[in-house]
Amino acid sequence: MAVAIQGEVGSFSDEAARRLLGEEIEIRNCLHFDEVFRVTSEGIVEASVVPLENSLTGSIHRNYDLLRRYGLRIHRELYLTIIHNLIALPDVAFEDLEAVISHPVALGQCERFFERFPHLRVEPSHDTSGSVRELWERNLRNYGAIAGRRASEVFGGVVLMEGIQDSSNNYTRFVLLRTDSGEEVGNKTSLVFSFKSVPGALFKCLSVFALREIDLTKIESRPMPERPWEYLFYVDFLGNLREERVRNALNHLGEIVEQMEVLGCYPRDESVRKTGI
Amino acid sequence: MAVAIQGEVGSFSDEAARRLLGEEIEIRNCLHFDEVFRVTSEGIVEASVVPLENSLTGSIHRNYDLLRRYGLRIHRELYLTIIHNLIALPDVAFEDLEAVISHPVALGQCERFFERFPHLRVEPSHDTSGSVRELWERNLRNYGAIAGRRASEVFGGVVLMEGIQDSSNNYTRFVLLRTDSGEEVGNKTSLVFSFKSVPGALFKCLSVFALREIDLTKIESRPMPERPWEYLFYVDFLGNLREERVRNALNHLGEIVEQMEVLGCYPRDESVRKTGI
Repeated sequence: MAVAIQGEVGSFSDEAARRLLGEEIEIRNCLHFDEVFRVTSEGIVEASVVPLENSLTGSIHRNYDLLRRYGLRIHRELYLTIIHNLIALPDVAFEDLEAVISHPVALGQCERFFERFPHLRVEPSHDTSGSVRELWERNLRNYGAIAGRRASEVFGGVVLMEGIQDSSNNYTRFVLLRTDSGEEVGNKTSLVFSFKSVPGALFKCLSVFALREIDLTKIESRPMPERPWEYLFYVDFLGNLREERVRNALNHLGEIVEQMEVLGCYPRDESVRKTGI
Repeated sequence: MAVAIQGEVGSFSDEAARRLLGEEIEIRNCLHFDEVFRVTSEGIVEASVVPLENSLTGSIHRNYDLLRRYGLRIHRELYLTIIHNLIALPDVAFEDLEAVISHPVALGQCERFFERFPHLRVEPSHDTSGSVRELWERNLRNYGAIAGRRASEVFGGVVLMEGIQDSSNNYTRFVLLRTDSGEEVGNKTSLVFSFKSVPGALFKCLSVFALREIDLTKIESRPMPERPWEYLFYVDFLGNLREERVRNALNHLGEIVEQMEVLGCYPRDESVRKTGI
């Protein structure tokens, strides 16, 4: 099974894809998210795995926009704990390090580490896993890289310090995407809708869920490029499309909104037991 | 009057600051948004002007987070039309160009231009205005830069092509920030709130506005880093804090939320006549 991800072997997307689909998959590494969505929608790969949201930095908005543009459907979700490690080449000691490379987001999530060791120069790179590969390619024996444990295993690095990120509450939500809707089993549903801009419109939309005690777990607004300062709303809720209260809610929502699309109905990752909003 | 902005002389932030406060201000150019907020909160400058939202790409989430962290208050808003131009050194013709430099966001907003002229190589730089300066510094006579008209005037470039952005609906909303709340005159109010995660909580919060026919113009959710998958909600609405229905709505909201903070009450920029959500 061919699966597209953005980023390198050993990246967090790579880890998420293998957790969702097993070690037997054949990963296609793409440079940009656009390419991930394109090769999936064109059937060049069977599925893709992309991040939608991080607990510290928020939504990856580009992927919300691409989800709608390419009409892909969510089949599964996974919350991955993000643990950043300081990795170096074999036989390199912490005392040898003068600089550290990684993706700017990862560097930003390890600010306290750099406050503790201010002599370490910080250099941005394209991705976390690729920064470990770069240690080998440039034979950097005075550099460390920040990446997940898997990157260290894949490229043969040594973890000098584990879990150097500022916050232990660092999770990323990944989703598995395909072109079809699948069996729509599961207890979580994602949808996107838009409405005519009138006072109270969003309140009315949320009423279809609240009045039926359907639990929202996420709401996100994104601009509509062709209509300045109007928004698309992306909503996740707990419920299956075949449940009567969900069917009623979506029929009710259909009376209010201009357009609406189900992005997927899939099993909730029960490791994050969050109640609603 | 000293005013902090992120970016160079001639940038869109520079233009927004001068439109809001006149040409007599003394601009302090900061490399990062963090510095803009810090120097304002420490009183090193009297005010700052930052972008909060773009009609095509959405909110500048970092600035929402910084607004709350530094406790600054919104005093004014301005919608600036973003017009990208192809700029070159004097006596350089379009036919001389082999590459174009600019900020990646600006390059991304001119995709159709690059499809029309595929021989032009694309190179990222730190900001739009700085890319015009770079033409001079590196004496790039085979390069163009993409920036606003003001950057061309400030650095003495020539506009070879005007308005090369894909969409004419490209606006950025800037706000003027100070440490105090000001006089709180005006017809628009911004606030941020959070609530205990229970089903229907957001619906209840929005009811305090909808039931009083108070018009929301924007809602944005941001993660709370210390509480994974819980959110802060940023809301803008049309109304003044001294109006009775607004006072009642905020008292009512106070019954529902865990915390709530008014970010500013200021005159709406009437050039964007958007109705509510």
